[in-house]
Order: sequence, then C-alpha cells, then structure tokens
Amino acid sequence: MKKHFLFTPGPTPIPPEALLAMAQPIDYHRSEDAVALIKDVLEKLKHVFQTENDVLFLTSSGTGAMEGAVANLLCNGDKVIVIRSGKFGERWAEICDAYGIDVIPIDVRPGDSVASEAVEAELSDNPDVQAVYATLCETSTGALHDIEALAGRTKHTPTLLVVDAVSALGADDLQMDNWGVDVVVSCSQKGLMTPPGLAFAALNGRAWEAVEQSDLPKYYLDFRKAHESGLKGSVPYTPAVTLLIALQIALNRICDEGIRNTITRHNRMALATRNAVKAIGLPLFATSPANTLTSIRLPEEIDGKAFVKMMRDRHGITYAGGQAELSGKIVRIAHLGWMNENDVIVAISAFERGLAEIGYDVSLGAGIAAAQEVFTKQTS
Amino acid sequence: MKKHFLFTPGPTPIPPEALLAMAQPIDYHRSEDAVALIKDVLEKLKHVFQTENDVLFLTSSGTGAMEGAVANLLCNGDKVIVIRSGKFGERWAEICDAYGIDVIPIDVRPGDSVASEAVEAELSDNPDVQAVYATLCETSTGALHDIEALAGRTKHTPTLLVVDAVSALGADDLQMDNWGVDVVVSCSQKGLMTPPGLAFAALNGRAWEAVEQSDLPKYYLDFRKAHESGLKGSVPYTPAVTLLIALQIALNRICDEGIRNTITRHNRMALATRNAVKAIGLPLFATSPANTLTSIRLPEEIDGKAFVKMMRDRHGITYAGGQAELSGKIVRIAHLGWMNENDVIVAISAFERGLAEIGYDVSLGAGIAAAQEVFTKQTS
Repeated sequence: MKKHFLFTPGPTPIPPEALLAMAQPIDYHRSEDAVALIKDVLEKLKHVFQTENDVLFLTSSGTGAMEGAVANLLCNGDKVIVIRSGKFGERWAEICDAYGIDVIPIDVRPGDSVASEAVEAELSDNPDVQAVYATLCETSTGALHDIEALAGRTKHTPTLLVVDAVSALGADDLQMDNWGVDVVVSCSQKGLMTPPGLAFAALNGRAWEAVEQSDLPKYYLDFRKAHESGLKGSVPYTPAVTLLIALQIALNRICDEGIRNTITRHNRMALATRNAVKAIGLPLFATSPANTLTSIRLPEEIDGKAFVKMMRDRHGITYAGGQAELSGKIVRIAHLGWMNENDVIVAISAFERGLAEIGYDVSLGAGIAAAQEVFTKQTS
Repeated sequence: MKKHFLFTPGPTPIPPEALLAMAQPIDYHRSEDAVALIKDVLEKLKHVFQTENDVLFLTSSGTGAMEGAVANLLCNGDKVIVIRSGKFGERWAEICDAYGIDVIPIDVRPGDSVASEAVEAELSDNPDVQAVYATLCETSTGALHDIEALAGRTKHTPTLLVVDAVSALGADDLQMDNWGVDVVVSCSQKGLMTPPGLAFAALNGRAWEAVEQSDLPKYYLDFRKAHESGLKGSVPYTPAVTLLIALQIALNRICDEGIRNTITRHNRMALATRNAVKAIGLPLFATSPANTLTSIRLPEEIDGKAFVKMMRDRHGITYAGGQAELSGKIVRIAHLGWMNENDVIVAISAFERGLAEIGYDVSLGAGIAAAQEVFTKQTS
C-alpha cells in the first residue's frame, strides 16, 4: 500500500478541499462570479505579500512573472545588478541577457548568501543602475538572502529592488512595504498551496513609474494590462480559472492562520529539520538556510540521484535532488505550504531510514528526537 | 434547482473524469510519471493538429503562444501581413506592433472572411514579407477563414503562414501538413476540453529555420527551449501539472473518436444550430460561419447584453455576447469540445424561450425542429 508524500520545493501538496473545488464544472471567466473571485484573490494576496500595493496575476509559471519584472521595468540600454547564487539568480541574468540589458553580476558561492556590502559597493560604483535583481530563497541551494538589508541599501537611492520570492513567499518573511522592497514576484505552487500555472507580481509606486518609462517589447506579460484588468476583477486574456478557484481556498487558509503565523510555522518546521539533519550528522548546504527548504550536503560515498530515486520508488517519498553542478551532491527537503510538524516527522524519519538502507551509519531516531525537541520547546 | 450550461467559446465544459483526475494529489513535474505524461500528451496532440511535426506546449493562455509565434519567428525590421477581421486578428497586429514589426494589415469587415486573392495581391506587392498571420475561426465574429486557400498562396513562396487556431482546433478542419501550413497555435480550453492555462504550437521545418534566425527578445515564450525539453518529456519551467493530467484524458477521448470524426461532429452541431437560427428568423452574423461557434445578429430592439445576462441569471444558460463594437449586438453560441446533439438542443431551446420571454415574436419549437432535421438526416 504505497502512500505518496511530496517534499519538493514546488509543486507542494494541495489542500483536498482546493483539489475538489477544481473538480466542479468550469465557468466563464467573464461572469459576475469570476469578477468577484478575481477581486477576492487579488485582495487576499496583499496580505500574503505584506503590502498595501496592488498585486497582479498572470497565467504562467513564476518565470513568466520574473520576465515581466524585466520587460516591464527596464529600458533599452539599462544597466542592472543581478545577484547570482544559484540557478534562480542565474535566471534573472539570463532573462536580462535575452533583452540586451547590461548586467553587473554579483556572484556568490552556491549555498552562501549575498553580503549587502557587496551590493552597496557596486551601487556606489554604478549609481546609474536601474534595478537590483535578488532572490529571497535560492531554491537550488536553500540559501536565504537578507532582503531587508538589501532594501536598506536601495530604498534611499533611485535604484529599484526586485525580489524573486517564487519559492519563499509565505514561508520566509518578506515585508514588502515595511522593508521598502519595490517589486516582488511569486507563483501559485509553493507556499500558496495551489497547482502551478499562476504567477504574481506586486509593484510599489516608484516601480510603476519605471513601468511607464519602459520601452522593452511585451504583450502577454504586460504588467500594466494585468494590473488595470485586475482592479476590475477582469483579465486581458483567458486566465487559469480552475487554479484561481483553488487559490481562493488556499488563500482563505493562509488569511485565517495569518501570514505572520504562517511564517512562524514554516520557521518551526525548518528549525526542526535543520536540527534533525545535524543530529543525523550531515552538513547543511546553505550557510543561511531558508524556512522554505533544507538542503543537505551528502557524503561523497552517497549517490544523491540514486538515493532520491530509491526514496520515491521504494518509499513513495519524493525529495528533490540537486540541479546542474549540484546534481547528485545534495538532497533538498521542502517544508513548504500545506504542511505541519507531522509532515516534517515523516520527511525526517524516511530520510533516516533511507540512509540506513543504503548502509550509511545513522543512529535511527536521532533526527526525530532533535526535531521533536524543537516542536516541544516551541509549543510549551 | 438551477443547472448550469456553458455555451461560451472557451472555457468549454470539461469531461467529469478529467475534472476528477485533477483532484488527485499533485505530483512532482520532474518524476518519471511526469515525463511519460508529457511525452504522451505531445504525441497525441499531433493527431489533433493533423501533423507529423512536433507540438510544443507552454503554461499560458493561447495569447502566449500567439506572442511566441511572433517573438520566435521574426527578426527586427521584418515585414508581415496580418489579416484583421475581428478582435483576434487585431491581436496578431498588436503583438507585432509591440515588437516593432512592420505590419501590412488586410482588413476584412467583421463577420466576413478574407479572400485569398487579397493576400496573394499583397504578397506579390511585398515578396519580402516574412509571414502571413491568419486566424482559422475569428472567435469574436464566428467567421471561418479558408486556411487551405491561404496556404495555397504561401507554401510555394518563402513567406510563412502562421495560423491562430486557438478556438477552432478540433472543431474546424485544419490539415497542417496536407495544406502546407507552417505554424499553428492553439490552447487547452476550447476544442481540447481542458481548463485554460496551456497553450500549444506546432512548427514545420521551414518555420524552425526562421526560429534559428530570429533575433527578437524572448525567454519564457522561447519555442526552442519548450520544444527541446518536450522531446525529452521535460519542461524548462514548472508546467501546469493538473492541466496536463486533464488534457491527457481529453486527448484520449479525441483520439478514440478520431480527429476526422471530431470535426464531423462539430460540423453537424454547427449546421443544426445555423438551421435553427434561420428557422427562428434571425440572421447569422458570419458569412462563412465556423463549426466552432454560431454568431447571431440580434434585432435592434433587443439589448444583447441584457439578454445574455438574463439567460445566465434566470436560466443558468451562459452564451457569450459581442465584444468591443459588437457588444450588445450579437449573441455567440459555441458548440465546441465536450458537446453533442443534446447540448445543441438545450442551447437552441433556451434561446427560443429567452426570445419569447423578452417579447420577441418567435414560433416556439421551430428552431428545434430545424436542428433535429439535420441530426436525423445525418444519422440515417
């Protein structure tokens, strides 16, 4: 009787009531009901984004919103700073390259997080930089970047701070308004507990001013059209209706819990997982790990790809392996979205057992005990 | 006990087994199961596109694939012909404008279809035109364009023929390979009986050569990346997994019926609807109406917006009204996707009854009889 558990950093498990809501007969996206649905979803997203700014949505993966945050904010010949600390920081640079934007990369060793001083230094060398493109949680490594510190460096300058919160929104703290972040992009299939296919962006006033100036080509990813339509509960193009229905239910759960509590829950799950990994005796890959997922560096003798495959095939446990040059070298365990302490216990227990089964010397239960200590301390 | 019937030209009703399949727990998009799913879906799409060319998919609305067919095929400074006979022909021109492409418009009165001679004339005046952008069914008017005739004019020239089959794929005939069409784009929520959120494109060899030359900026809508990933059952970015699952089930139904039979079924539903409208005494809006939907011109004394709203609110029947300058002037009834004769009977019967209720002089049952005549003749 195989039972599947999904611990990948997206897609993440969907609450069953959201899954079932998608099974109702589909409706027209220009009905009064759809208008109310879109308005409600966009209003509730503000709570999750911790902003008073409007949030807009696109029918696309998170990458669509990332590209939108380039094509809508920049002009031909603009210069930007891109923080590259893994696959998703690199994606910012690739998108900018596709549009002929002049990229000043700040490269950070994978697993590490950027020092805001490095950004400050580049900014003072290049005061004409239009935007800094950063990542809240670099999903390929599990590293959390200090967005509050970066915003401290940009908010009093003309340079915009654009943050990829694709995987971390709702898991790691991102106080868009309080910290002075100009643009945040995210998507449906991570902390928002909804299937993939919707992407979001929130822009503050000065980001919208940049949009007015932008001369790069765009049509489907046009933020202005998405924003203006959204305010009326409308859409420029047929949206992923079923996903909006699931999203509304997922957002209700987050709004009921309260975003601050949602982040605290993720922090507790992450702390427990990290403590467990340490107790098992393996090193964490990220120096400043995110609440979103925990990356574990595997000993050289373990083939990470085979381990991940074995866990899925034999145990129905899906972790994510490493990507690109990290393939086979790390395992990534997400504690993200519709999860609580008991899911973390399953993830850790299976991890211990898997290690034992491939002959790695592990003291069974050590990780579980370390995790339970976190949970017990925090609830007592 | 209100029961809803959806007769809009997208989204269209979804088979319940496809809806229910989306309610299963979500899985990782890089699993072996997902690889098999993607490969199967892309293979079956070839049958629907009537092509041996590979089909690629994007997580977006159909407009994403339309933009892709501009950004991936053209170069800076290119000149194209765009056939504009309504909102969706205009969309081709708007997208080209966004990329600074030189557009030669061929404007056709809304409701009419383009004469291939007009395209031939522009082509001989402008032999350097890179592509002709056309529409199979102009959804805003219900007009069918003769793509076979257009392909006859382009296939022996260096000019590519790019067809928006967003609404009509699987309803109106489009023999990509036999007719010599270079590029076809479509999406999930029309003839393919799947919720919105997936878009498709099929390109032939010479279209792929144009892709190699193209220098317009693109990233998320990059056809080459989508194509190369798709061949391996992979994706460059997280796809709309739940929609792929529904699509597989919908495609199984079309493949079981056979695309030629699917088109014949749509033709029969369209003929019956058109005969019914004529028997009711109202004029068809399109001179060459599509199998996809029937547009009906309303008498001046009928407020089309109020009529469509009344039908939905009072009867649970959702037709589409007119868009832009046709708002209030036409009603559009789709017979598209997961529908058969009995759905058409409901659409016509409700239409007759609605007209009677607003005091229009209609002979109840006349439309139904005319439709039944078509169905009886074709099955006997």
